[in-house]
Amino acid sequence: MHATSGLLQAATDPRWFECAAVRWQELVLDHANCEKKAASTALSLMFAYPEDFELADRMSRLAREELRHFELVQQKLRTLGVPFRRLSPARYADGLRKSLRRTEPGRCIDLLLTGALIEARSHERFVGLIPRLDEPLAAFYDSLAAAEYRHAGLYLRLAEQRGEGTVERLAALAAVEAELATSPDPEFRFHSGTPA
Amino acid sequence: MHATSGLLQAATDPRWFECAAVRWQELVLDHANCEKKAASTALSLMFAYPEDFELADRMSRLAREELRHFELVQQKLRTLGVPFRRLSPARYADGLRKSLRRTEPGRCIDLLLTGALIEARSHERFVGLIPRLDEPLAAFYDSLAAAEYRHAGLYLRLAEQRGEGTVERLAALAAVEAELATSPDPEFRFHSGTPA
Repeated sequence: MHATSGLLQAATDPRWFECAAVRWQELVLDHANCEKKAASTALSLMFAYPEDFELADRMSRLAREELRHFELVQQKLRTLGVPFRRLSPARYADGLRKSLRRTEPGRCIDLLLTGALIEARSHERFVGLIPRLDEPLAAFYDSLAAAEYRHAGLYLRLAEQRGEGTVERLAALAAVEAELATSPDPEFRFHSGTPA
Repeated sequence: MHATSGLLQAATDPRWFECAAVRWQELVLDHANCEKKAASTALSLMFAYPEDFELADRMSRLAREELRHFELVQQKLRTLGVPFRRLSPARYADGLRKSLRRTEPGRCIDLLLTGALIEARSHERFVGLIPRLDEPLAAFYDSLAAAEYRHAGLYLRLAEQRGEGTVERLAALAAVEAELATSPDPEFRFHSGTPA
């Protein structure tokens, strides 16, 4: 855990994991949305900074991996017979978006740092879910956890290569992220706060 | 060419190909944009119709392939030493978008049919470019042409599976597409009209 160990400022409350074990159908449905959104976020960075070939290449590869995961989550939903439902998005992504700086190069750095935080949170939750879910979901999340960890490191490295003072900025964004991920939340989602 | 041979209502004017051979740097730069936009279009269909698992799965795989092509085009730009430039989008995609029906299920069918037309046009231009470009670009476009042809067939099949009366609708959209791809156009792009 060396590269991303210090990223998260608060651990997910055990009540979130207990809720997830019971409401696993919503968990997996929302997980499909998250993989799709992760691909979309990577793509939006490619559109926003097309002159940065290295960033575009990394984001393109990342988006492909997220899409592959999306396909696997959809297959899981099918084999487990989970009926489709549209789920409203969690407050999480929107809350993080509000904290981004509006001018460049700060905005790009903030997008990359929040990318790192989201992936680190996903990794933390995957790891915590494994012992609490039944098969085949436990094995499924086990198979995906390492990728989230790797993605967090990638985003962090890209941010560090592109900006100075990322350490202080990371701390500020991580505080927002920790609040969103752990304060009471009336809704249950993959990235929701502690069940209210 | 059986599956998509009847899709296009007008062939690209030879003057477009002559222009492309001279302005190959802009051609390849805009091609990178096109692959990125193709992935983005596939993703937007996944977001618009999440209850259609089959569509989402196909679009996810398609987006991955478009992204892989984007990476290859970027590598080509690098090895050929083409300096980056932001290019305004062609009138093509916006012109097609204006022709889409606004209500469902018509809108979904129209999005799929225009997807088929765009891929068919790309295939037609790739094939026409091969004998007119120098190496390594000729071989590069040769390696990509089959995929565009396959994508056109995929979009067409998805449209036919989801709607009735697609044949008439396809003819109407193909007429718009042919006009955009062959009428005089002051700008040169991958999907621009005949050089004015």
